[in-house]
Amino acid sequence: MKKKVSLKDIAKKVGVSTATVSYVLSKGEESRVSLKVAEKVKKAARELNYRPNQIAKSLKSGKTFTIGLIVADISNPFFAHIARIVEDEAKKLDYTVLFGSCDEKADKSWDLVQFLSNRQVDGFIIAAAEGSEKQIEYLKTNNIPFVLIDRYFPEIESNYVVINNYKAAYKATRRLIQTGNSRIGIIAYASSLHHMRERIRGYKNAMEDGNLEIKEDWVNEIRFSNIKQEVKLAIDNMLLSKNKVDAILFATNTLAVYGLKYIDELNYKIPEDIAIISFDEGEAFDFYYCPLTYVKQPLKGFGENAVKILTDQISDPALKKEQVCLEAELIIRKSCKRG
Amino acid sequence: MKKKVSLKDIAKKVGVSTATVSYVLSKGEESRVSLKVAEKVKKAARELNYRPNQIAKSLKSGKTFTIGLIVADISNPFFAHIARIVEDEAKKLDYTVLFGSCDEKADKSWDLVQFLSNRQVDGFIIAAAEGSEKQIEYLKTNNIPFVLIDRYFPEIESNYVVINNYKAAYKATRRLIQTGNSRIGIIAYASSLHHMRERIRGYKNAMEDGNLEIKEDWVNEIRFSNIKQEVKLAIDNMLLSKNKVDAILFATNTLAVYGLKYIDELNYKIPEDIAIISFDEGEAFDFYYCPLTYVKQPLKGFGENAVKILTDQISDPALKKEQVCLEAELIIRKSCKRG
Repeated sequence: MKKKVSLKDIAKKVGVSTATVSYVLSKGEESRVSLKVAEKVKKAARELNYRPNQIAKSLKSGKTFTIGLIVADISNPFFAHIARIVEDEAKKLDYTVLFGSCDEKADKSWDLVQFLSNRQVDGFIIAAAEGSEKQIEYLKTNNIPFVLIDRYFPEIESNYVVINNYKAAYKATRRLIQTGNSRIGIIAYASSLHHMRERIRGYKNAMEDGNLEIKEDWVNEIRFSNIKQEVKLAIDNMLLSKNKVDAILFATNTLAVYGLKYIDELNYKIPEDIAIISFDEGEAFDFYYCPLTYVKQPLKGFGENAVKILTDQISDPALKKEQVCLEAELIIRKSCKRG
Repeated sequence: MKKKVSLKDIAKKVGVSTATVSYVLSKGEESRVSLKVAEKVKKAARELNYRPNQIAKSLKSGKTFTIGLIVADISNPFFAHIARIVEDEAKKLDYTVLFGSCDEKADKSWDLVQFLSNRQVDGFIIAAAEGSEKQIEYLKTNNIPFVLIDRYFPEIESNYVVINNYKAAYKATRRLIQTGNSRIGIIAYASSLHHMRERIRGYKNAMEDGNLEIKEDWVNEIRFSNIKQEVKLAIDNMLLSKNKVDAILFATNTLAVYGLKYIDELNYKIPEDIAIISFDEGEAFDFYYCPLTYVKQPLKGFGENAVKILTDQISDPALKKEQVCLEAELIIRKSCKRG
């Protein structure tokens, strides 16, 4: 193994003291050396391919410059895109990202929190699973910085970056009504998580404000563990019953992907037979024969805000908790207007 | 902050020595304590919520139980799915995954190799960028274990998990010929990377073996930095010239997504006007009005083999390098047969 380049090697090359090199490379805020010397040191470090030992640095600073990212599933495009943005933002600040997928299960999420804590991550960005309140309390009690994204627990004071889910679902439902639909169903997850409750509430209130009745079978809550079967059942209930709907709102991209595949199997045409709006975006929606109208979530906003808030809090744990609520945008395409 | 549970606390609860607890929890291979005592210790550790200090453990073992994963782009579904499999496999062996996206740039990849090395990852899984041979040599010289996936450098002896790209492209082109096409073009990346050269070679040889001429403008190599524009240009050259093609083979999912969007804009119909096969899978392809015939890559095979080979080599650096070449599968759907 090649001998590692040390601060001493750099000092020797530039002709300054090791203390000066150490000072420049550890980026002290006050300027104790001239800009010219600082430049020379940095140039020599680059030329010699100097690699600071992060474990030694960690022991000294108590920081590892790693962030733990816990999402439901990294292979879901919604989370994969957020991961990419978190990665890019973290890298700008010299942080790396450790990640894990909890499959919407609180025990798997707890496992990941512990697992990543054991790697001494400096903080967490978490898309919380249902029933994970105790983990969040645990992080708070142990002063481990964290930011919740996409979902949060209203009863727990914490940093979070979310969208106004109520408003987004209200606007989407309103759009379905305005384009001539009145028998509108929703397919969401059976979850006590606030963001999901808010999406359902937005749908219900928009129906109420439009003086439209919501029939039995129109509010479908699917278990994450059995999506494919239960989406089929929900669609059967909505399309093959006496209370047939003329429009469906899907509360997530995954629900829509399964739902649209089944609607195609049944040979229903969109938008002629059924109007559709879904949350989230994706190439799948672009390629669908009828380009979907969808609720575009601000993925960049999630990632950028989460990394900023988290790294600020890592630097200064005394900072006030920050709550960011972003707006989603309804992207109008062709899946609403029937007849 | 809550006091951390120590080995002593566990020893006290079970009524054994601290040495015994340490022995059981560090999983020595020889059985120096009874199974019954071992079970008691593990139960107590769980009940007390014992968290080993990973940094202390790292300093002792010289291992951090982290793997660095470098891909072109974590938000590309091909890499996002591999990342998910790598994550799951790594977790089974108590490893976590740090990841980074290099955007197919060697300098960004080098940056990541250094960045993650500074975090003392135990090894790397890398989808190598063009021109990154020196980094691979660097890892070898410094005895840092690594496994290449998807791409490798034939001139560098290393661990790798790849597919037989030549055969996959040959079979895809052969399928296009067998379904009645004879004027077949390809859109690939302009890259010296072996896997891309092999895909082009497979296409060319299948054309040759079918006694078919390859006209100028039919072999299109697109720069990764300018995909959208150059894919359009390539398609213009192939569809609007005197040497009009009747079929196109796309060498990756990203190229196909851009290509199909533009073909739709031009109002060409698939498969009536043009037959299509693409490498890679995706919900986008499922939802395309004409479900695509595609080259299905063994994502699970990439992830499982890479993690196994890497962790084996981390445990025993003297192990012989392993090379795995998997077969891709041609999934026949509706985008080939014209007329």
